[in-house]
Amino acid sequence: MKPFMDKNFLLKNDISKKLYFDFAKESPIFDYHCHLNPKDIAENVGYDNLTQIWLYGDHYKWRAMRSNGVDEKYITGDGTDYEKFLAFAETMEYAYGNPIFHWSHLELKRFFGIEEVLNRKNAKIIWDKANELLKTEAFRAKKLIENSRVKALCTTDDPVDSLEYHLEILKDGDFHVKVLPTFRPDKAVFIEKDGYLDWIFKLEKVSEIKIDSFSKLMKALEYRVEFFKSVGCVVTDHSIEEPFFILDRENQIETIFKKVLCGEKISKIEIDIYKTKLFIELGKIYHKNELAIQIHMGALRNNNDRMFDKLGADVGFDSIADYNYAASLSKILNELERENKLSKAIIYCLNPKDNEVLGTMIGNFQNSDAPGKIQFGSGWWFNDQKDGMIRQMTALSQLGLLRRFVGMLTDSRSFLSYTRHEYFRRILCNLIGTWVEEGEIPYDEEILGDMIKEICYENAKNYFKLDI
Amino acid sequence: MKPFMDKNFLLKNDISKKLYFDFAKESPIFDYHCHLNPKDIAENVGYDNLTQIWLYGDHYKWRAMRSNGVDEKYITGDGTDYEKFLAFAETMEYAYGNPIFHWSHLELKRFFGIEEVLNRKNAKIIWDKANELLKTEAFRAKKLIENSRVKALCTTDDPVDSLEYHLEILKDGDFHVKVLPTFRPDKAVFIEKDGYLDWIFKLEKVSEIKIDSFSKLMKALEYRVEFFKSVGCVVTDHSIEEPFFILDRENQIETIFKKVLCGEKISKIEIDIYKTKLFIELGKIYHKNELAIQIHMGALRNNNDRMFDKLGADVGFDSIADYNYAASLSKILNELERENKLSKAIIYCLNPKDNEVLGTMIGNFQNSDAPGKIQFGSGWWFNDQKDGMIRQMTALSQLGLLRRFVGMLTDSRSFLSYTRHEYFRRILCNLIGTWVEEGEIPYDEEILGDMIKEICYENAKNYFKLDI
Amino acid sequence: MKPFMDKNFLLKNDISKKLYFDFAKESPIFDYHCHLNPKDIAENVGYDNLTQIWLYGDHYKWRAMRSNGVDEKYITGDGTDYEKFLAFAETMEYAYGNPIFHWSHLELKRFFGIEEVLNRKNAKIIWDKANELLKTEAFRAKKLIENSRVKALCTTDDPVDSLEYHLEILKDGDFHVKVLPTFRPDKAVFIEKDGYLDWIFKLEKVSEIKIDSFSKLMKALEYRVEFFKSVGCVVTDHSIEEPFFILDRENQIETIFKKVLCGEKISKIEIDIYKTKLFIELGKIYHKNELAIQIHMGALRNNNDRMFDKLGADVGFDSIADYNYAASLSKILNELERENKLSKAIIYCLNPKDNEVLGTMIGNFQNSDAPGKIQFGSGWWFNDQKDGMIRQMTALSQLGLLRRFVGMLTDSRSFLSYTRHEYFRRILCNLIGTWVEEGEIPYDEEILGDMIKEICYENAKNYFKLDI
Repeated sequence: MKPFMDKNFLLKNDISKKLYFDFAKESPIFDYHCHLNPKDIAENVGYDNLTQIWLYGDHYKWRAMRSNGVDEKYITGDGTDYEKFLAFAETMEYAYGNPIFHWSHLELKRFFGIEEVLNRKNAKIIWDKANELLKTEAFRAKKLIENSRVKALCTTDDPVDSLEYHLEILKDGDFHVKVLPTFRPDKAVFIEKDGYLDWIFKLEKVSEIKIDSFSKLMKALEYRVEFFKSVGCVVTDHSIEEPFFILDRENQIETIFKKVLCGEKISKIEIDIYKTKLFIELGKIYHKNELAIQIHMGALRNNNDRMFDKLGADVGFDSIADYNYAASLSKILNELERENKLSKAIIYCLNPKDNEVLGTMIGNFQNSDAPGKIQFGSGWWFNDQKDGMIRQMTALSQLGLLRRFVGMLTDSRSFLSYTRHEYFRRILCNLIGTWVEEGEIPYDEEILGDMIKEICYENAKNYFKLDI
Repeated sequence: MKPFMDKNFLLKNDISKKLYFDFAKESPIFDYHCHLNPKDIAENVGYDNLTQIWLYGDHYKWRAMRSNGVDEKYITGDGTDYEKFLAFAETMEYAYGNPIFHWSHLELKRFFGIEEVLNRKNAKIIWDKANELLKTEAFRAKKLIENSRVKALCTTDDPVDSLEYHLEILKDGDFHVKVLPTFRPDKAVFIEKDGYLDWIFKLEKVSEIKIDSFSKLMKALEYRVEFFKSVGCVVTDHSIEEPFFILDRENQIETIFKKVLCGEKISKIEIDIYKTKLFIELGKIYHKNELAIQIHMGALRNNNDRMFDKLGADVGFDSIADYNYAASLSKILNELERENKLSKAIIYCLNPKDNEVLGTMIGNFQNSDAPGKIQFGSGWWFNDQKDGMIRQMTALSQLGLLRRFVGMLTDSRSFLSYTRHEYFRRILCNLIGTWVEEGEIPYDEEILGDMIKEICYENAKNYFKLDI
Repeated sequence: MKPFMDKNFLLKNDISKKLYFDFAKESPIFDYHCHLNPKDIAENVGYDNLTQIWLYGDHYKWRAMRSNGVDEKYITGDGTDYEKFLAFAETMEYAYGNPIFHWSHLELKRFFGIEEVLNRKNAKIIWDKANELLKTEAFRAKKLIENSRVKALCTTDDPVDSLEYHLEILKDGDFHVKVLPTFRPDKAVFIEKDGYLDWIFKLEKVSEIKIDSFSKLMKALEYRVEFFKSVGCVVTDHSIEEPFFILDRENQIETIFKKVLCGEKISKIEIDIYKTKLFIELGKIYHKNELAIQIHMGALRNNNDRMFDKLGADVGFDSIADYNYAASLSKILNELERENKLSKAIIYCLNPKDNEVLGTMIGNFQNSDAPGKIQFGSGWWFNDQKDGMIRQMTALSQLGLLRRFVGMLTDSRSFLSYTRHEYFRRILCNLIGTWVEEGEIPYDEEILGDMIKEICYENAKNYFKLDI
């Protein structure tokens, strides 16, 4: 029996250990997709206690607690921070097999040096020990990032954002981590949602363009892309929920857009024409500006109206959709490819049933623009766990070239999540090391070492042409 | 090489063995979903030979035999019982890797003490030996149940059923197993099928309500729910084949129902409005009566008309559907949740591609009503095998809290199927034991022991508030 | 650490090794589905260099090279053969984990006796060594086939094909391998595609029937089926991309067909009526002629218009679709079954999410016509790799009878692909051997030996009633 989460955690044989310790462990991190708040970085935020840094805003943990029957009072309600921590500690006793159990203990070990397994009995001791450490400089945002060997990270930002905090971070001569914005135009995409017009007005203001037509909308968005790029943006991000693809064959786009401006309802077909057109036109702008595009497919969001009314979005009531994406995704990428205007793209699916669809879809659009130009993104959200990662990497390796993979990102709102790169790297090294042990790939130390380092960091750095 | 199905069958390391023998093996059984005939229990049925107890009514075995090219004569036809047994014995030689091979040999071992591997050569010896035992009291229904350490079981019943046999069983002071009815209103749901009106007339009769409107239908159904509850019912059961969700926004339900009463055809949309409305209204009645709801999704039934015309339903011509359920399932659960009227629910999928959809869907509706209020049901029907169970439990553990799982049920028509709990428990203990061996969860004997006992029995007992 | 691809490659325990070496290794091959060009066989084609035999026409390798960023010049362009080989050798350094890495090295080992791992450094040496061997008689088509222990193979052929090369091969008294045509009427199916009418004219000519109605079309096709059968055809092949099933309830088929003859557009519904009717009518003809039917489902073809315009079809721009097939597949098979006119059928899916749908679908139509009458086909195309094969065989074994499986086919355009049977057999033997080692199936050497030999060769031979 191996001790719980010792230094060889997830590494099941000698080659896997060697690969991890020689090539992966010390690799820097380029966290090219996360949801950190740039304001928190700029202001070098600190935390009073473990609940603040661990439980505020972490909807993964909230879901686990709700599944354990914890009252909402101790999750998002007016329970005290310590009560909430205790409720989480109790939940941990029920979380064997869930990734939160691994993530949390990795964070306790790596950041706090706490080796105990969290439970109700030792919760107070751990609470006190961690809170003591949280008072120190090492637990403020900038040091947490730097000490995790992060060289660069990409936040996720609204096109109307001023990026003031990104600009402020740039000015800090003592902080050497690149904090880059990501252009994520969700608000421009979801024309059917409340608040679309409000957002258009914000875009008017920030772009100083009167948006009275679709072409003006695109002009305004192009300005914003250019502004984002000037602040260091290398990548954009689109969420595709229900699949769509209807070409605007009869030039209806301006009519559709004007309807919306006038507050008129538009049909499902018109919505899809708009989304298709917007995606294609933005795609061309990204290509012109040499920005990669991320596509996140397969979320089913805000499933619980009762809790949405109480708490809003992104609080743990989302799940995995099961739409048929293959045909429409193929067609929309083809529209850009047809004109030779398809950027580098990283496509993520939330439903692992789509792993093979994506693992082969990317092969349709590869070319000599770059090795691994089109990427099958790392296990996303609910798949960001051992089984999900193994399945994503197995599919990718069988259907494409694993060695060209740009690898892991945290997708996280927490400064403690960098240990997920460690988690990923251990799984990666074990996967490849096991192939070697089993005689399925050769023991060529040069290739293996390069392969690990590339997937851990170098591929992402080169893919985004990051000058670090 | 391990001997075939020895005492450590499916247990691949020391911890797994310890967990199984110390905590799982002797756990009682609460078989909260099965298809046993309560009449057989009330009458304490016995069997003349192995074919009667094994092959009559077991469509799993029939399918295997048909796949092996056996003539229907020796399956459901007029072959003798021994000829049928021989045809099955031959099929077993071709069934390596199929769960029937395991199930059958577990049943031979545990009930009959027969350790041989069944084949054509030894078929006669096994036939004779088993038939001799079948003459004894231990092989009548009640002893088979009791000797399997079953504390309670839920049959599956039509709302118009008189439940006379459940009531009769209650009167047997020497039989201490609770035999509870399950409210399964399929006949009320499938308004588009032949026989719907006949069934409504039966419901009229048994409820003593003139059903001339949808609201009267609901009143009649509510009476039946209350009657079922009075006989001990704790759980209901719905089958969802094609997904549906259309809210009755224009109050058409009474018109639709009246059309049907008049023998008029109704449209697909009207059918879906009816099904949606019925589900929601029944859901509220279940909630009021504190009954859990089971939802079985993803069966594609009666695929072979030629054989359906000969043999009817449930005879081995069903398979796995591949509909997109996520959005409609989310919406219909949300309708109840919105009014705080969602009961405890156990949701099963037949297509394992939906494991991750369900594993995350349940998280949308968890709260402090109960730990694990919404359950991802155990590997169902075609998934009731090693690979299916491992996949279901892996998905559940990665996406939810495995320790809150209400565990296994037989879903069976046979009194010999209780060994499937043993099968499940061995797989469960091996899964968790392997995590311990690999250092992926801590070796905390108290938590591990509790976890195993809870999943084997305690969780189900507490979930259904069973007073045993 | 096991050496890379040694004699025990993929065989992880003693029983697996025993099964492979005693029963699988020397089994003959019946390659019942491939895309070899019969002309190449008739003319006993040879090759000048490794690029010609390896890279010309192999879109798997092309995809890998594109994924590695190789310029199209060195893939399908005007680069020299050696430059292309070098580009492939470099790609191999990035292909750890991809089946091409295994396939290519198996081919180097088994056909060329080259044990080195191909890379840029040794590319020249391997190039020279292989090219020297390619000059010998053993590397011409017929010897490559014979030396691979192939007893029979089925090519894939257009119904209008003269089969002249099949007939020519038959005349070669020194070549004892049966080369049988497969009836693949894609061109008759895709009524919506350009070239449909041209093809109808070809069919008119070759069948000497004036095709002025659908019934004449069927007559012409029936003649061709009979002709194919006379040349040895035992199996047909249909590709189903978008699912379809609309019965021609109002006898529109002749009207629809005449519209097309007149060059009129037909609707999506009319297309589906045509496809449904054609499938059913052909199905009856196949049944009458005792031909098995293959159904290949789930390809999403020609996703990249830019490259299609340059290079045409089947050049590496296809991927996996995600349609819902279950209901329509069930209905169309049922239409034939209903009249007792369903042939033997082998159904393949490209999307492994459909494994369980197919694994259970086949059970709906099994009967005593033949053991394993309806087959779940081997891991196809993108699934023709370790993970895909394991998943297909695991699903089949859990849901049907693995021992009745007709096993592997190459689906290949290359004379070197027969090593894929070795690849499959090693995975098969390891799967079954591991079950024995783990005590999950008995160590019955007679059954195990028969089972391996049957899946490797005997089942296919018997299934197609091949007289060899």
